Amino acid sequence: MTDKILYEGKAKVVFATDDPNVVRLYYKDDATAFNGVKKGTIDGKGYYNNAISEILFKLIEEAGVPTQLIERTSEREMLAHTLKMIPLEVVVRNVAAGSASKRLGIPEGTPFKRPTLEFFYKDDDLGDPLVNEYHIFNLMEISSEDLELLGIYTFKVNDAVRPFLLERGIRLIDFKVEYGYDNEGRIRLGDELSPDSCRFWDAETNEKMDKDRFRRDLGDIEAFYAEVLRRVSNPPA
Amino acid sequence: MTDKILYEGKAKVVFATDDPNVVRLYYKDDATAFNGVKKGTIDGKGYYNNAISEILFKLIEEAGVPTQLIERTSEREMLAHTLKMIPLEVVVRNVAAGSASKRLGIPEGTPFKRPTLEFFYKDDDLGDPLVNEYHIFNLMEISSEDLELLGIYTFKVNDAVRPFLLERGIRLIDFKVEYGYDNEGRIRLGDELSPDSCRFWDAETNEKMDKDRFRRDLGDIEAFYAEVLRRVSNPPA
Repeated sequence: MTDKILYEGKAKVVFATDDPNVVRLYYKDDATAFNGVKKGTIDGKGYYNNAISEILFKLIEEAGVPTQLIERTSEREMLAHTLKMIPLEVVVRNVAAGSASKRLGIPEGTPFKRPTLEFFYKDDDLGDPLVNEYHIFNLMEISSEDLELLGIYTFKVNDAVRPFLLERGIRLIDFKVEYGYDNEGRIRLGDELSPDSCRFWDAETNEKMDKDRFRRDLGDIEAFYAEVLRRVSNPPA
Repeated sequence: MTDKILYEGKAKVVFATDDPNVVRLYYKDDATAFNGVKKGTIDGKGYYNNAISEILFKLIEEAGVPTQLIERTSEREMLAHTLKMIPLEVVVRNVAAGSASKRLGIPEGTPFKRPTLEFFYKDDDLGDPLVNEYHIFNLMEISSEDLELLGIYTFKVNDAVRPFLLERGIRLIDFKVEYGYDNEGRIRLGDELSPDSCRFWDAETNEKMDKDRFRRDLGDIEAFYAEVLRRVSNPPA
């Protein structure tokens, strides 16, 4: 096994393997927010997010969206398809919260009339600005078919994950995903789907079960990440 | 003639007339920038913008986009169709400049690969945020057909005005338009098309001939507004 680091991000490390088509993802406990301005550690986060992502990636794959997951190999690691990432964060929002709530003047907790799709251009220096399709075609090489597919896939993720979570007592408020091309040129959902990248609210109490506990200093962060894993690991209540 | 003010904006006053389908627009010399933070007066601006808008509105109407213009009646006034305005600023950019240049990290003066369409939600408290179609459907009542029409119309404006100006020594860098429904429910281009709402650069020198001279304290503001009127009033050089 090689230990060559291909890329180190805020929450994960990507290691090479002997197979150029396969990478090893290591999930870290490091947490950042507000474009890296706030930094910290959430004990066990790497374990929770790796395990939660595995469960949700399998669900998503069954729903017809190719993912990067090959298999989870340890508490904090999974083998994944090598991807050339597309520098976009693709967001679907079911309920207004966070930055969208502020930007649009819609009180947090207000359901959107219909799920709302957004693209953000991944660029730390620019603060990951909201972009539309015209901006995207100017900023990168991507076909209109592929860009459309990102939207279709992300709505499919929502349609699969939202009811799965609701049956387990979790409201999917919004989530962010990223995509990349595998070595055969196929678009796959990459990165992770976890309390770091989604807003999860308890379906009964609307209590936050996600990284907003870190962003907003709400406490009990580890306990809520663990609770999300417990709920998604078990059959519907 | 009535003097009842229906609406007073930053740059224009809308007066009622005896005909509920017709309003009288008065173009002011007041200038604002940065969402009203910077204020001033540009001598003669009302006259120049009224006259420039008349010329461009006629051109746009000929290109198949209904406008609010009925007729210019004095130096600073025009009669116009009564419109119920749609709270969107519709922008087409041919060349990166201003806020888009900063937001996307594209140096000012870089041509876009193709004209780029943007929608901003008109809300002073929110700072007129960039929105996409999903946001728009959540923020207001508008059909997808009508929203699509706003895009089609705005590209038609670009296709008509851009070559007209270039023949007169002016590059159309970007522009902002607004639309409304007339009393028969027809969408018409409203507001104005002037150095206040467009970026005009001299085709030879790239000197700015628009409100950026006010925003950026470049001086000679009145002279450049007058020069734009002189060029659009005359046949191609």
